[in-house]
Amino acid sequence: MNLHLHPIIRLPQTSVDKGMFSAGNRVLPEEVPVALTYNGSTHAVMMASPADLEDFALGFSLSEGIIAKPDDLLSMEIVEHDLGCEIRMWLQDVRSKAYRARRRAMAGPVGCGLCGIESLAEAVKPASKVHGALHLPPWAIAAAMSDLARAQQLNREARAIHAAALWRPEQGLIAIREDVGRHNALDKLAGALARANEFCSGSLVLLTSRVSVEMVQKAARMGAPVIVAISAPTALAVRVADDCGLTLVAVAREDSFEVFTHPERIQRIGP
Amino acid sequence: MNLHLHPIIRLPQTSVDKGMFSAGNRVLPEEVPVALTYNGSTHAVMMASPADLEDFALGFSLSEGIIAKPDDLLSMEIVEHDLGCEIRMWLQDVRSKAYRARRRAMAGPVGCGLCGIESLAEAVKPASKVHGALHLPPWAIAAAMSDLARAQQLNREARAIHAAALWRPEQGLIAIREDVGRHNALDKLAGALARANEFCSGSLVLLTSRVSVEMVQKAARMGAPVIVAISAPTALAVRVADDCGLTLVAVAREDSFEVFTHPERIQRIGP
Repeated sequence: MNLHLHPIIRLPQTSVDKGMFSAGNRVLPEEVPVALTYNGSTHAVMMASPADLEDFALGFSLSEGIIAKPDDLLSMEIVEHDLGCEIRMWLQDVRSKAYRARRRAMAGPVGCGLCGIESLAEAVKPASKVHGALHLPPWAIAAAMSDLARAQQLNREARAIHAAALWRPEQGLIAIREDVGRHNALDKLAGALARANEFCSGSLVLLTSRVSVEMVQKAARMGAPVIVAISAPTALAVRVADDCGLTLVAVAREDSFEVFTHPERIQRIGP
Repeated sequence: MNLHLHPIIRLPQTSVDKGMFSAGNRVLPEEVPVALTYNGSTHAVMMASPADLEDFALGFSLSEGIIAKPDDLLSMEIVEHDLGCEIRMWLQDVRSKAYRARRRAMAGPVGCGLCGIESLAEAVKPASKVHGALHLPPWAIAAAMSDLARAQQLNREARAIHAAALWRPEQGLIAIREDVGRHNALDKLAGALARANEFCSGSLVLLTSRVSVEMVQKAARMGAPVIVAISAPTALAVRVADDCGLTLVAVAREDSFEVFTHPERIQRIGP
């Protein structure tokens, strides 16, 4: 099985329509294992679309709290193997020490009995507080989502590919990244923005997906005060967004949407 | 933040329709961190719907290859914490040794430089070969998916909840499990079937989601010769299904579907 390093590919299929068979093909999203290594040790293997992998590695490192800023990475090298991609990152000294301590904690003592509770606390760490006096007119939500839809290049060809984007009221779409996984798309966006030194305050994070708690945590870490998503949030995502001061807009359709937390950032027009 | 151990919950929201605000509510899927521990060490924390957690733990343990059969688990205890659930599992002696060796390998030596390649090989291990002379008439696909839709109880109330089910031509729906995560839904199904001693040969695994490579690996490990999914597969999922002999049916609509691998299990009727 050879690695295919393009995010979409056309493959043969057989269509069966009302019992009639016909040979054809369909453009599908590619999916590649990406091993993220720090100082020579694998931290995680993620299944991702093979595109914008530098953004992915940077955004993932920031989201996971392995680095605090792009400069904390000493180097990054992408190595292609038969089975997937390896992204080799080396950390600055100060980060290396913290990372070694964290790895030891992750491996954990066997049989301590407290691991489960500690791991739960790690998984639901309070999200970063977000601030920002953004005051959006309702029509801005529809405008943002329409800009998002127009910019989903991979999805237009292959469907079933998620996107995450940053949008600002006066400027429109700042950046968009696509991936077969919704978490990856948001990590890629975070990486692209950090690399370009773009701020997220006063900006909306747009998502084509559902909103699970990790999406809220990632957006809050980026400093974005508003998430707008096409699909629904989980209840835990709503609670965490409420706690950290983030405005969570979801079920965003052509001319309607629902606000689950901090509606004060959406202007009430009229009576 | 208190733990809410019901898979769905009604939360307040504000609907904005053509600029008009109205206070209301929506039923949302709950999402709870679940720490899976073996012999006192956390293996993983998964975000899951708090329902059928015994099935989840058993199915996850089987899918991950930590156990080969339900009896390999000596005990299982579900402990509720403020932040989530802990599922404490203890392994039979023979499995404990294998698990300790695996954990040591996972933690890995720091700086070996080979970790990335090894981790990629681990992520794309060849799927189990599936066999089975199933010969399905095309209408069986629509019948199966219609049975699936009718049985999605949680999704009917909250939307945005995935399901995985097992279906047999003569018997219809054997079991269905729902979860906010599609991988979890399939692991829950695998656990429920293992517990009930249900075989998967001659059966279809039905999915409401996209088909990523892990869904194919899980279904193949269960021994199911056919996957039918509502959405599209990734290209890697198609390659792995082809290699392991699994029939991958996707984009299953009311009276049409697409076959990506091993179409010989679908009967050609007519000319």
